[in-house]
Amino acid sequence: MSTIRQIEGGVTAARGFMAAGTEAGIKYKGRRDMALIFSTAPCVTAGTFTSNVMKAAPVIWDKDIVEKSPFAQAVVVNSGIANACTGKQGMDCCRAEAECAGLALGIPAEAVFVASTGVIGMQLPKDRLEAGIRKLAANKAESVEAGLDAAKAIMTTDTVPKQIAVSFTVGGKDVTLGGMCKGSGMIHPNMCTMLAFLTTDVKISKEMLQKALREDVVDSFNMISIDGDTSTNDTLLVLANGLAGNEEISSEGEEYEAFCQALHYVTTYMAKKLAGDGEGATALIESRVIGAATKEDARILAKSVICSSLTKAAVFGHDANFGRMLCALGYSGVAFDPENVDLYFQGVSGKIQVFGNGQACDYSEEDAARIISEPEVTILADMHMGDEEATAWGCDLSYDYVKINADYRS
Amino acid sequence: MSTIRQIEGGVTAARGFMAAGTEAGIKYKGRRDMALIFSTAPCVTAGTFTSNVMKAAPVIWDKDIVEKSPFAQAVVVNSGIANACTGKQGMDCCRAEAECAGLALGIPAEAVFVASTGVIGMQLPKDRLEAGIRKLAANKAESVEAGLDAAKAIMTTDTVPKQIAVSFTVGGKDVTLGGMCKGSGMIHPNMCTMLAFLTTDVKISKEMLQKALREDVVDSFNMISIDGDTSTNDTLLVLANGLAGNEEISSEGEEYEAFCQALHYVTTYMAKKLAGDGEGATALIESRVIGAATKEDARILAKSVICSSLTKAAVFGHDANFGRMLCALGYSGVAFDPENVDLYFQGVSGKIQVFGNGQACDYSEEDAARIISEPEVTILADMHMGDEEATAWGCDLSYDYVKINADYRS
Repeated sequence: MSTIRQIEGGVTAARGFMAAGTEAGIKYKGRRDMALIFSTAPCVTAGTFTSNVMKAAPVIWDKDIVEKSPFAQAVVVNSGIANACTGKQGMDCCRAEAECAGLALGIPAEAVFVASTGVIGMQLPKDRLEAGIRKLAANKAESVEAGLDAAKAIMTTDTVPKQIAVSFTVGGKDVTLGGMCKGSGMIHPNMCTMLAFLTTDVKISKEMLQKALREDVVDSFNMISIDGDTSTNDTLLVLANGLAGNEEISSEGEEYEAFCQALHYVTTYMAKKLAGDGEGATALIESRVIGAATKEDARILAKSVICSSLTKAAVFGHDANFGRMLCALGYSGVAFDPENVDLYFQGVSGKIQVFGNGQACDYSEEDAARIISEPEVTILADMHMGDEEATAWGCDLSYDYVKINADYRS
Repeated sequence: MSTIRQIEGGVTAARGFMAAGTEAGIKYKGRRDMALIFSTAPCVTAGTFTSNVMKAAPVIWDKDIVEKSPFAQAVVVNSGIANACTGKQGMDCCRAEAECAGLALGIPAEAVFVASTGVIGMQLPKDRLEAGIRKLAANKAESVEAGLDAAKAIMTTDTVPKQIAVSFTVGGKDVTLGGMCKGSGMIHPNMCTMLAFLTTDVKISKEMLQKALREDVVDSFNMISIDGDTSTNDTLLVLANGLAGNEEISSEGEEYEAFCQALHYVTTYMAKKLAGDGEGATALIESRVIGAATKEDARILAKSVICSSLTKAAVFGHDANFGRMLCALGYSGVAFDPENVDLYFQGVSGKIQVFGNGQACDYSEEDAARIISEPEVTILADMHMGDEEATAWGCDLSYDYVKINADYRS
């Protein structure tokens, strides 16, 4: 097994990748709102996208690029306006963005991904968008700072930029994988998360890259929820430019496994960051289910707990109200015997059992309250039905979630 | 078609029904927390219950009574503690309650329904419960006031008692149907609502009563959601004592239809009251879907909108952020063409179209904001795919929802 080492940076960490962030005044003044990722060499790509019927225009554009373009080299992202529910005008805007970026970067329009996040139902201001793209192309750089600039430019209600990079070995060659992502409302990924972009210099076939991504999201991005609303814009893209010089990964085996492990490290890190920085969140909630009969059961049960508004409000209130978590397991759709479920609260300050044999355990409310007051709390359920397990991540429900979403547009 | 006339009262409106409410100190002091419904004559019964795997003990007890007892005559309800996740001790408590009530009322224990609402995971205090039952039995009365006392005693975070009674005609006889119910958190009924009790003097066979109830809840109680959490205790019971003297309804036909219409009037009224009085709610949201391909599609689409946290927060903020409603339609699981959806906001102050032909309409934000600020707002979606329609009811998401649920137990 290859060792995975976390290193500095994000999307510019891998060889040949440049980035930039800028203020384009898309919807607000004085706020970084456009980002660019660029690879000096053509990239193999893979992507997963929202399952929402109301797909935003950039989602439709990017799906086409992943499926039909022989390669890609750039991603243009804006925040402020989502370019969703915008009809033909919205699609035309995607093409204009890609053509503008292609011209500025010297690559075909069909090698440019576009992504948007923000308010649904508004049209993008084409002039400002194109001016922004030209500025991004002129300012792009390989530096760590340039990567951070890009990560900051895609934030909406996020409180911190989210990026990571890791180094690992494939066939004796050093390989780097980096990425950035943003939340933090309308997050209930079904295929992938809101916006996440991964860049790597590994050499890998398109088929194996897509397979790795598809199988990974099931236990990473698809296991988080902030508010149960599956966005119109969910997009996860990976660009692999092959500059690490390893022998191409074109089948399963040790090298493929090494890549998958690094990928999972990065996606899980990002998923947890997204969940913990959910709109208004004060705590990361980890819901871990063990002893389930099937893997799918484990996933459904784990996710049901972190989606429960009442569980989320209880964590916000530091109230060890375990009945709400049992209730959420109970309505998940998975059949089980309530008499056989053990429920625990776990944090750095300890682990206590709160429920077993069909009723409350004799635990200390004080201990339970202390654990549930930690910034990262784990709710652990042992179903005693088999050996499968899964983990899901969410956040608490606070006054600030309501505040942020009651006047998001103003 | 029989005329349905709303009359004064609730569970005591129909002939032969008595009720009472009292303070039993179940969990809190100085608060009405126990209620009794009693029929002087044996009743045919029907019920629907939570689909949650973690069924509360009273739910298991009541299902047994509906399925196995030849008749029933009483319902004992407490608030404060839900008797859910309480194992064998919880079931023993149900039996003790029924035996105590049976003794005090002179009926078999197997003719007594029990119902509980409140905190999950705590055991009920048997002594106080039995003292409460004896007090209720002694104080029961046929008056309007007694019915209101009962409706008040089952409230938890409800802000108003919820009851209704109607009068209608079956085969030339005056029939009365009344009821009471309570919310107001953990409401996402799947089978029925939290707690709702209907009493009627109609003469009807058990089969037809159960059929009427089962078919009704699909478009009444099952179409509301306050927070997406399906309770462990959801219970809807109907008791029919036959004292109206009509010829027994034992098959479909005019008489059965008259009863079904009255039933739907009452259940829809109650469902809307529950939704509008959701925890922390400042507005009732009605989501109406027309032009759907199938009835089931219409229901799923309508319900998806009222379950969306982002839609709920937008209504609280009086923000006509229609993209969130389209987004909720889009992730509902129903396939449709976004280009063909028309979306409207409707209130007493008018109706405006906000979306059509795949993009935003040219509407006045001021008009939209005025409509969405009303205490009852309708979000209307025309899918243009067929003739089926459905309506769902929910409420906005406010700071108070978080406040109420962050320290519910304290």
